[in-house]
Amino acid sequence: MSTSKALPQPDREDIRIEAVLQALGEPVRLQIVRLLAELPEGIACGEIDLPVTASTRAHHLRILREAGVLSTHTEGTKRISSLRRDDLDCLYPGLLPGVLAAPR
Amino acid sequence: MSTSKALPQPDREDIRIEAVLQALGEPVRLQIVRLLAELPEGIACGEIDLPVTASTRAHHLRILREAGVLSTHTEGTKRISSLRRDDLDCLYPGLLPGVLAAPR
Repeated sequence: MSTSKALPQPDREDIRIEAVLQALGEPVRLQIVRLLAELPEGIACGEIDLPVTASTRAHHLRILREAGVLSTHTEGTKRISSLRRDDLDCLYPGLLPGVLAAPR
Repeated sequence: MSTSKALPQPDREDIRIEAVLQALGEPVRLQIVRLLAELPEGIACGEIDLPVTASTRAHHLRILREAGVLSTHTEGTKRISSLRRDDLDCLYPGLLPGVLAAPR
């Protein structure tokens, strides 16, 4: 039987703008967010192509999850992450589009 | 004769989203930005009421200026700071309104 389990994350009302901005203000994490923005269904963490080690990738994903920027759930042996777009758009309308519009 | 001199700051095209997000993602700096958002004419740095020392305030103002979030110019013995709203709105449309909409 396949089970799906969500990893711990803040409820919408517990998301703090300072934590979101700090999470977004790092080049690798911003790269992850840009990728997730194009993948509404989410992506398996192992499939995110980044110029860092797996443990660094996991670290950045954890920071983003704990800040409330993304959700992660397990599917079998996979961890699937997706952007919490609805929550961010509700709390900070315009923030995510503005960040994603930034020149690279 | 009164002279006005602008302190060093990045040109619009040199502003980096990572630096802006890092600058904004700190409680005292966010408080400064919220205040400046209500004062289009700017404010003398010494008149910004914050629960920190003058040197800490100066530090935070410098971080914001070097990231491209605010401009500072001298008028006589005063340093007047104002938000670079046009530059931020042009580079990252929605970002600043989203940040300012955040629950306190």
